[in-house]
Amino acid sequence: MKKPEQLITEMGQKARAAFTRLAGVSDAQKSAALVAAARHLRTGQAAILEANRRDMESARDRELSEAMLDRLMIDGERLEAIAAAVEQVAGLPDPVGQVIDRSERPNGLVMERVRVPLGVIGIIYESRPNVTADAAALTLRSGNAVILRGGSEATESNRAIFDAMVAGLVEAGLPEDAIQLVPTTDRAAVGAMLTASGLIDIIIPRGGKSLVKRVQDEARVPVLAHLDGICHTYIGKDADPDKALAIAVNAKMRRTGICGAMETLLIDQDYPAPGPLVRALIDAGCEVRGDDAILELDERIVSADDKDWDTEYLAPIVSVAMVDGVDEALKHIAEHSSHHTDVIVTEDTAMAEKFIQRADSAIVMHNASSQFADGGEFGLGAEIGISTGRMHARGPVALEGLTTYKWVVRGTGQVRP
Amino acid sequence: MKKPEQLITEMGQKARAAFTRLAGVSDAQKSAALVAAARHLRTGQAAILEANRRDMESARDRELSEAMLDRLMIDGERLEAIAAAVEQVAGLPDPVGQVIDRSERPNGLVMERVRVPLGVIGIIYESRPNVTADAAALTLRSGNAVILRGGSEATESNRAIFDAMVAGLVEAGLPEDAIQLVPTTDRAAVGAMLTASGLIDIIIPRGGKSLVKRVQDEARVPVLAHLDGICHTYIGKDADPDKALAIAVNAKMRRTGICGAMETLLIDQDYPAPGPLVRALIDAGCEVRGDDAILELDERIVSADDKDWDTEYLAPIVSVAMVDGVDEALKHIAEHSSHHTDVIVTEDTAMAEKFIQRADSAIVMHNASSQFADGGEFGLGAEIGISTGRMHARGPVALEGLTTYKWVVRGTGQVRP
Repeated sequence: MKKPEQLITEMGQKARAAFTRLAGVSDAQKSAALVAAARHLRTGQAAILEANRRDMESARDRELSEAMLDRLMIDGERLEAIAAAVEQVAGLPDPVGQVIDRSERPNGLVMERVRVPLGVIGIIYESRPNVTADAAALTLRSGNAVILRGGSEATESNRAIFDAMVAGLVEAGLPEDAIQLVPTTDRAAVGAMLTASGLIDIIIPRGGKSLVKRVQDEARVPVLAHLDGICHTYIGKDADPDKALAIAVNAKMRRTGICGAMETLLIDQDYPAPGPLVRALIDAGCEVRGDDAILELDERIVSADDKDWDTEYLAPIVSVAMVDGVDEALKHIAEHSSHHTDVIVTEDTAMAEKFIQRADSAIVMHNASSQFADGGEFGLGAEIGISTGRMHARGPVALEGLTTYKWVVRGTGQVRP
Repeated sequence: MKKPEQLITEMGQKARAAFTRLAGVSDAQKSAALVAAARHLRTGQAAILEANRRDMESARDRELSEAMLDRLMIDGERLEAIAAAVEQVAGLPDPVGQVIDRSERPNGLVMERVRVPLGVIGIIYESRPNVTADAAALTLRSGNAVILRGGSEATESNRAIFDAMVAGLVEAGLPEDAIQLVPTTDRAAVGAMLTASGLIDIIIPRGGKSLVKRVQDEARVPVLAHLDGICHTYIGKDADPDKALAIAVNAKMRRTGICGAMETLLIDQDYPAPGPLVRALIDAGCEVRGDDAILELDERIVSADDKDWDTEYLAPIVSVAMVDGVDEALKHIAEHSSHHTDVIVTEDTAMAEKFIQRADSAIVMHNASSQFADGGEFGLGAEIGISTGRMHARGPVALEGLTTYKWVVRGTGQVRP
């Protein structure tokens, strides 16, 4: 058995070589590989479901939670959804080669910025085996090589899905090292990926908070991720009460477990209808934790403590504070937001613009539910994740976020004076 | 005396607060601050030159090299150039607020990506005191707060220039903590900056290779930099001999000490006039180190060893290899380039496009001298540096590279189904 560092080094070198070869591959070939991979996912159904059955069996033996088992499980319907998602990525427009901007200099040199792939991408993920197909499809579509490292509980399922993806590569004549799966569950392999500067260009963790935190803490390679989604909705004094109510309930309760779910509601002290707002949340099944002013609105409200303002519940619980104007709302958000998605609800356009300008988050919304924080809803197609970092890509990251650019200078013999 | 970690933490917090305040400042105010700063640089000439005289005196006592002394020295003419550069940055268009793209979704939501500043930028630099003014001007112009850490040999000069910059801020009513100078030459302060995740968003080193290497090795904060400029020029078999000769001599000899200078010349084995090319370099005063095939061209050529292909000479020395076609040239470049700037000279457009597509460098040029690798030559205005990293910004980094974006979602009460 190879040492994890040596294993990752060799995989990284193979990935780099595959990446270099991908630069000479046409867009049509990359699409064809994904279409073929989707077909192999379908024709390989028996093998994939059998592999998943073995994973499920071990998981039950290890007494994993029902939620974990559900994330792990693949049936015919889920496999069809995985294959369809790969086909959908095959149909997205290729960002590579796109000219971002172009200028001609007085000396006749033409300067273009052209989109190119990022390079070798490392994906570290947990339980859900569909990430194997999704991540491989998105990274290949954008011309990158990928090293996948899935969770130990999904080893067999990941391997079976991975085999179908590689079969697609081979069928389309692409280098099979463009998609690699780390063949060990040794946690030291994750450490080796996180420190593989020069071999891996970027790491994208997909999974729970403890995984993301470990990756962010230990990585010496750039990381694209978000740790928390502590999203705020501020109801301004001039908010339309119907919109306010619909947006607050949707932002919190549509799905409570996603990163774009509202965790804190800020109500302006001059907003005329705070009572119906919190009661609608309570009636929808949400626990409301309020500050002193909010507590007076309804006896079912419980008292929030200091920790509530920094908590991502991912559950039907919301912290609610009353604030004195947009400046105090912005101050609260600056102190407690995770810079994911923050929302203002108001009919006052000038106030909305002020909020949009000052709220320092990856996504800032006016009169909309924070649950729209999703690459598909943004029209970007499938997303690889949402980034709360400030560098490179922010918010939903899809194909374009998996690219960078290079400068192309076209001359006719110019020399610099 | 505060501990370096505490000092940097406090400076980082002040910078973050200033950055937040800058979000509410108009473009005109930022420009006005820089115009005022330029005036303070001029009216403060006596104090700045006196401070520089003291630095020069210490530097001579410490027997610094003539090259170091020259980099450190400020006279009236150089100070005027520093002030003029600050005014020039004041006149550049503000990237902040620019709408990168915009789309309307079927549900009526409008998605915009809007340029915003990066945040708090740390600049770590050596000897040249003009960096104090340049870096402060570029970071402020793009709406960022900056923490400057100059070299110990320029302490007094940096402080005097810094005072003028802050006087400009104060005069324009901007938060003075938007530009801060680390008040100690304790090297531990650099370490504290490099690990100040969450306080400093990006570090930009400006200086020699050992500084950049230390920053890249130790930083836990993203770094924008280049370590080497090992730039190649490949002369294809169909290159125009006049262009080839002019470009090769210019790329190597115009200025040998800059990162865009050619370090390796690759000549196609079917290029008809290799002799005149290397003789022109030798006649221009360049030492030519060749492989076996090149050695036969002229007896003044010396033999290259393995190290030469990975050496940034920054001197009138060039390594020259003969290669078999564009694929071998690309292979050599993939192995030895520092991904800064690589050039093809050819009249064969298809071959040029192949080279442009495959060469994985921040800047790829066709029929032009690599010495054009400079923000000013690219029409970007003053640059903060050149990046060979793949993330965020590549090649010359100017105002736009000091920004990121946020998503602005404009709705009319939409909730997600």
